[in-house]
Amino acid sequence: MAGNSFGQLFRITTFGESHGPALGVVIDGCPPGIVLDEELIRRDLRRRRPGASQAVSQRKETDDAEILAGTFEGRTTGTPLMMLIRNNDAKPGDYAEIKDRFRPGHADYSYWKKYGIRDHRGSGRASARETAARVAAGAVARMVLREIAGAEVFGCVASIGELAFALDDVAAAGDDPYFCPQAGQRDAIEAHIAALRKDGDSCGAVVHVEARGVPAGLGEPVFDRLDADIAKALMSINAVKAVEVGAGTAAAAARGSAHGDEMTGLGEFRSNNAGGVLGGISTGQDVVARMTLKPTSSITTPKDSVDVEGKPVKVATKGRHDPCVGLRAPPIAEAMLALTLADHLLRHRGQTGRA
Amino acid sequence: MAGNSFGQLFRITTFGESHGPALGVVIDGCPPGIVLDEELIRRDLRRRRPGASQAVSQRKETDDAEILAGTFEGRTTGTPLMMLIRNNDAKPGDYAEIKDRFRPGHADYSYWKKYGIRDHRGSGRASARETAARVAAGAVARMVLREIAGAEVFGCVASIGELAFALDDVAAAGDDPYFCPQAGQRDAIEAHIAALRKDGDSCGAVVHVEARGVPAGLGEPVFDRLDADIAKALMSINAVKAVEVGAGTAAAAARGSAHGDEMTGLGEFRSNNAGGVLGGISTGQDVVARMTLKPTSSITTPKDSVDVEGKPVKVATKGRHDPCVGLRAPPIAEAMLALTLADHLLRHRGQTGRA
Amino acid sequence: MAGNSFGQLFRITTFGESHGPALGVVIDGCPPGIVLDEELIRRDLRRRRPGASQAVSQRKETDDAEILAGTFEGRTTGTPLMMLIRNNDAKPGDYAEIKDRFRPGHADYSYWKKYGIRDHRGSGRASARETAARVAAGAVARMVLREIAGAEVFGCVASIGELAFALDDVAAAGDDPYFCPQAGQRDAIEAHIAALRKDGDSCGAVVHVEARGVPAGLGEPVFDRLDADIAKALMSINAVKAVEVGAGTAAAAARGSAHGDEMTGLGEFRSNNAGGVLGGISTGQDVVARMTLKPTSSITTPKDSVDVEGKPVKVATKGRHDPCVGLRAPPIAEAMLALTLADHLLRHRGQTGRA
Amino acid sequence: MAGNSFGQLFRITTFGESHGPALGVVIDGCPPGIVLDEELIRRDLRRRRPGASQAVSQRKETDDAEILAGTFEGRTTGTPLMMLIRNNDAKPGDYAEIKDRFRPGHADYSYWKKYGIRDHRGSGRASARETAARVAAGAVARMVLREIAGAEVFGCVASIGELAFALDDVAAAGDDPYFCPQAGQRDAIEAHIAALRKDGDSCGAVVHVEARGVPAGLGEPVFDRLDADIAKALMSINAVKAVEVGAGTAAAAARGSAHGDEMTGLGEFRSNNAGGVLGGISTGQDVVARMTLKPTSSITTPKDSVDVEGKPVKVATKGRHDPCVGLRAPPIAEAMLALTLADHLLRHRGQTGRA
Repeated sequence: MAGNSFGQLFRITTFGESHGPALGVVIDGCPPGIVLDEELIRRDLRRRRPGASQAVSQRKETDDAEILAGTFEGRTTGTPLMMLIRNNDAKPGDYAEIKDRFRPGHADYSYWKKYGIRDHRGSGRASARETAARVAAGAVARMVLREIAGAEVFGCVASIGELAFALDDVAAAGDDPYFCPQAGQRDAIEAHIAALRKDGDSCGAVVHVEARGVPAGLGEPVFDRLDADIAKALMSINAVKAVEVGAGTAAAAARGSAHGDEMTGLGEFRSNNAGGVLGGISTGQDVVARMTLKPTSSITTPKDSVDVEGKPVKVATKGRHDPCVGLRAPPIAEAMLALTLADHLLRHRGQTGRA
Repeated sequence: MAGNSFGQLFRITTFGESHGPALGVVIDGCPPGIVLDEELIRRDLRRRRPGASQAVSQRKETDDAEILAGTFEGRTTGTPLMMLIRNNDAKPGDYAEIKDRFRPGHADYSYWKKYGIRDHRGSGRASARETAARVAAGAVARMVLREIAGAEVFGCVASIGELAFALDDVAAAGDDPYFCPQAGQRDAIEAHIAALRKDGDSCGAVVHVEARGVPAGLGEPVFDRLDADIAKALMSINAVKAVEVGAGTAAAAARGSAHGDEMTGLGEFRSNNAGGVLGGISTGQDVVARMTLKPTSSITTPKDSVDVEGKPVKVATKGRHDPCVGLRAPPIAEAMLALTLADHLLRHRGQTGRA
Repeated sequence: MAGNSFGQLFRITTFGESHGPALGVVIDGCPPGIVLDEELIRRDLRRRRPGASQAVSQRKETDDAEILAGTFEGRTTGTPLMMLIRNNDAKPGDYAEIKDRFRPGHADYSYWKKYGIRDHRGSGRASARETAARVAAGAVARMVLREIAGAEVFGCVASIGELAFALDDVAAAGDDPYFCPQAGQRDAIEAHIAALRKDGDSCGAVVHVEARGVPAGLGEPVFDRLDADIAKALMSINAVKAVEVGAGTAAAAARGSAHGDEMTGLGEFRSNNAGGVLGGISTGQDVVARMTLKPTSSITTPKDSVDVEGKPVKVATKGRHDPCVGLRAPPIAEAMLALTLADHLLRHRGQTGRA
Repeated sequence: MAGNSFGQLFRITTFGESHGPALGVVIDGCPPGIVLDEELIRRDLRRRRPGASQAVSQRKETDDAEILAGTFEGRTTGTPLMMLIRNNDAKPGDYAEIKDRFRPGHADYSYWKKYGIRDHRGSGRASARETAARVAAGAVARMVLREIAGAEVFGCVASIGELAFALDDVAAAGDDPYFCPQAGQRDAIEAHIAALRKDGDSCGAVVHVEARGVPAGLGEPVFDRLDADIAKALMSINAVKAVEVGAGTAAAAARGSAHGDEMTGLGEFRSNNAGGVLGGISTGQDVVARMTLKPTSSITTPKDSVDVEGKPVKVATKGRHDPCVGLRAPPIAEAMLALTLADHLLRHRGQTGRA
């Protein structure tokens, strides 16, 4: 099927350009009777929104998700749930200057090659704004996970540039303006971002995400493994260049004698190098993953590029962009993890009758 | 759909347990008229096979793929291509001892929780033997990529344990018994593996894979991005804990001023931090990815675990296992990359009429 | 995937309840660069709309499709095309009386059993109003068929109740207020409908649909045959109880010597009992199908039923309903045929490179 | 996905040509722990087999399904179940004469147009032999329906040519050599077929199929309606030209006052014009459908046609073919109905937690 859908049974389809009239999402296959917590949707959209802190883009996106279908008297009906988010602050004029030229490291060029069309307004579907629809859908996935399995999803920033954080309190990080799991880092973060702004530059980041209370048995070998679907889910987020599960890249240098998580009881383990997944199936341990984001390509420092006719040009972006997109990414990573788990929860229930 | 299929238009479905009578694959949607190079299939199966070198498992798998459907007079017909691989060397007796106990770090436990059934013979679908079917299908994907787009896929071992290799000649590595891209490493590798065997231990590895000649335009935003589908493809391989594209985890500490690949012409770039993918769509540069494999969990050193009743036991594996599964993984990674690209090639052609 | 999507490459997802705020459709996988003929969308929606003639429901649905995503400067971009249709004339009050009771022959009961929820407002997703989204999407499918293959889709009413029409001019019927292919039938139709209204009754109908200019080769054996997907497409329309292709049910009493269409040249046939499809693949002849619609269950004559507690009640519907839904069905059948063909056109192009 | 798969959660993929070495099926998503009744598989294959009675083709197909994956100790494991059926009686020589010419009414021509390849041996995938794989998979679907829902599927011949039968005992018809639901028709049937053979001709047929004990709630509005998926399932069978559900084409001339099934209690109805489906969702009544098969195109009477260069030829088929394929079709229709229901049973359980 075409590429704007995710999931098999709990299935979302997103649409909308960053500078068109609206974007949104259709959730098909949502279990009926789930109490729809609209405040949770608003909270997650608010957490993703630019302008939530000094460190991120100053665009004002109100991001109110209007629910146009799929509910009755405050509950899901089992029919498609549709949420629409209007674009109120789109300023196409900001982009006129790069209309015919390609930003280095940006999707301008590849979209043009694929579709033969140049929609230069704020990158269209390639804009991070597209993720608002994922976050709204992810909030519904959270409700499903909570109601059917008692599971919860959390995310935080593990590092920005060379600045790394201790994973002291991942759950609390969700309400921190910088999604930082370590206390007392605010000044360091703001200084780091301020320096980047001053330099007209950007930096990469690592985002940590985990799910607690996930029942054992989710994931379908051999291709739709839970970890494979999580890898796809996270790698589908803008700017992500790496996805790790459990020990991740550290497993390369590990020894089997130390790496394999010893068991002390049914569902009890001495460690979690597996990240909660063995053979592609959840074990009941916390599901733990990590993603690396590249520095945003939209920076004010001029770089070499070409225009649509291949002529050399210098490109610098004037739009309102984040120096570190990682600072806005945890709610998006949480949403994608929640969507993956909700889908596999229903798939597992369908095949085995258990959940 | 259920989890044993991969791809949308060029779609494979695999089946078979490591210790059942056979395993195999159905390829549906293969373009008609492709000359079927059976020697290429045999070559790739031979490269994946245990026993190809001293350093890997000494099982004798003959791995002849019998083509039972989908060809006529040496060409594909467009109908399902089916390949069957008999299991001739299965020794279920080897596994009797672990019949009721869970190997730490192994899928025994999670399969049992998912399906409520314990097929203890050599891990069933969780065995690395399952990947033979992927490799056979991947060889057909190579033929499709070659004939329609002139693209080729290569893979090699980038490191085993702490032993890292220079990516001197990735293409030549395909015929090296250890898939090593750096000349003169044979003794070091064999010494490394011999030491592991002596210790009853295992180690992790990193595998590098790349595709050359991939046309620009492959990949479907926003979820079925080319890099997202590659991430899923590689993460679905046994023991993989991390997938990186282009700069990968190194992007975390990078600056936008240095990271974004500058363009010097249409389709010409100064670097390839993107790994050939921007916004989820191929740019025409080489598509480059990397995966980290954990140390195999089947080792002869006893570890703490439990049996199906939760009672503490010591588990050591007596089967014929590889101390470093990474040494057999490059052909599997190549197959998964080829399958992903072949599918997206057909999808792109379907939507846009171009290939 | 969940049930509100149709198609694989040209894929639509619909949403919305008849008495909620809005309904609509997302088209994913639309080829880029197609000139978007908004007047064609309006025309098709107008043709489907109740109140277009005296004979059908007098509800006023304005049915303006607002295009919120997927276009740029009048052409499709290849990203999801989204169309929203607001519900302006919903009167939930009309349905208060049947809130707790089941209309005989209506989906009230089965939805309640499936989802455990009773959304009594105008049947929710089971309302014929849902088909407005299909018609809007079908108009886009027409543009794709026209631009890529030069194919056109037509539909008409073949009979209402016992009143049958000659298929004199199927193409012209599309602009007739009753979609009648035979001239001079207006009075007969209006008299027939008036009599039904007077009796508080309804009648069934047969709708004929055909596509001209369809290239040979569309359809995928063995399950996604073109005729099988047409059967699904038409049977998914409200009230449809039978689908026939080519000779249809008349084939039961036919002899092979007369039935098999003789060939007089490549792509030239003496007859079209096949309905343009052999072995599930189009032959280049006109694709011809027919569907039977049952009499609408919403009538003003009281019938025996039960309420949600199983107690006997009499049910008569007071809403504004059509005595013969068949009179509004041709544009819906055309839309579903166009959607099926557009999808198979892209699938065929993906696999074979031809269109 | 490509066209040789059917179902979403209980998903089959078939492969194999009639005159290649083998055909078969992979079932993915089968619930684990189902007792595999191999005798039931053999029985259904035997019932479908040519040569079972005098009236049908005298080919000897042994049709033993070899189970090569997905079971352990007599139960399904939840991993792909694979069944292989060898072709032992293929006689490619029979078809040499029609190598370059197209049989009127046959898929020869359309396959050639689609794939650009002419596999003339017994029609390849277009042969009725392909349905053996469906029947084997359908037998497993029956086990799933029986074990999870207590539902059963039955089929019979409702008419051959002009010879119609009373639906006296549909369940008993399953063991009749002609699948006839009316007692004492044996001589009439054999005389009818003998006359066709003498004339070198063939006739059409109607097959009735029904499922009893189907729980209410199966089917997903709005496209994956249970009746829409049944329509696709039955129309995908070779030679089928029409599918009817419940009252079928008779609904065209019916009145709403008589057609809508009155309810006398929850799940109790006075009639079953709906065929057990309202709004695309099962009601708990018997699910009833009917399909019309055209006369087989492979007859010994010469007909006008052309060869691959478009030159006029006379074509008569010399192979061993059935004068009425309807006499072998009930087990195939049962299989497709069972497969559709099993898939929707799991989908319903996945979304709602009920079955």
